[in-house]
Amino acid sequence: MTLDLQPGQRLARGVARHLAGHGFVSVEEFVPARGLRVDVLGLGPKGELWVIECKSSRADFQSDGKWQGYLEWCDRYFWAVDTAFPTELLPPETGLIIADGYDAEIVRMAPEGKLAPARRQVLIRKFAAHAARRLHVLRDPEGHGVFDFDPATR
Amino acid sequence: MTLDLQPGQRLARGVARHLAGHGFVSVEEFVPARGLRVDVLGLGPKGELWVIECKSSRADFQSDGKWQGYLEWCDRYFWAVDTAFPTELLPPETGLIIADGYDAEIVRMAPEGKLAPARRQVLIRKFAAHAARRLHVLRDPEGHGVFDFDPATR
Repeated sequence: MTLDLQPGQRLARGVARHLAGHGFVSVEEFVPARGLRVDVLGLGPKGELWVIECKSSRADFQSDGKWQGYLEWCDRYFWAVDTAFPTELLPPETGLIIADGYDAEIVRMAPEGKLAPARRQVLIRKFAAHAARRLHVLRDPEGHGVFDFDPATR
Repeated sequence: MTLDLQPGQRLARGVARHLAGHGFVSVEEFVPARGLRVDVLGLGPKGELWVIECKSSRADFQSDGKWQGYLEWCDRYFWAVDTAFPTELLPPETGLIIADGYDAEIVRMAPEGKLAPARRQVLIRKFAAHAARRLHVLRDPEGHGVFDFDPATR
């Protein structure tokens, strides 16, 4: 599985491992709203929702015109980059995680902008559906055609 | 994967496929509270929570002394059995699903006993954590040792 991961996916794997060590669970490529897709959404033991965007290079960061649209879908927003990334490019009011494919470390905690309770509930339910659907596909590869009827929520 | 499933797990697979066709996602072996473990917990598009206990035989049903304890953890409670099961054994005030390893059908809808909102929120968050944790283990088998610190929530 390791060999065919893209650079951003390797960072996401390290981030997911690190979050798990903090009691968080996480999913990748989560869609909070139409047209948006976050690299990692972490769910904490108290219902905290953290978005982590993984950037493998300067070009990868500079071509991202959507990140500010993610702020309203989480309590805290982080970038995850590797040790070679020029971190001075990153906006100071965001969190920073240094990652590789095996682990990660939170270098700068993101400021908190708390979600409204109703939005948090909707996001946690979507997170549950996302994780369960992907788990189902892996557990029962022949059975997942049943999900095709509802592409909007994948 | 098919060959090494136990009879109850085959029923659960058919149930999960059928629920997906109704827009539900589901997880198996979910722990709503200490000492309880339900075979299938389904989560509907409006946050509905259904428990489905899979019984492969008369003996399997008759040895289950815990099922009434599951009623307070769901909106609707069902049994899933195969066509050979003596369904007259099952309490009439519960739902009935006839299943095999490939699909299932709801034969008798369970009565609704709505969860309180606070409990529903906690259960949906636990559902999300359960699904994401199991998905993580499958996606990153070498990384899941990080979950060992928290056996209570597995």
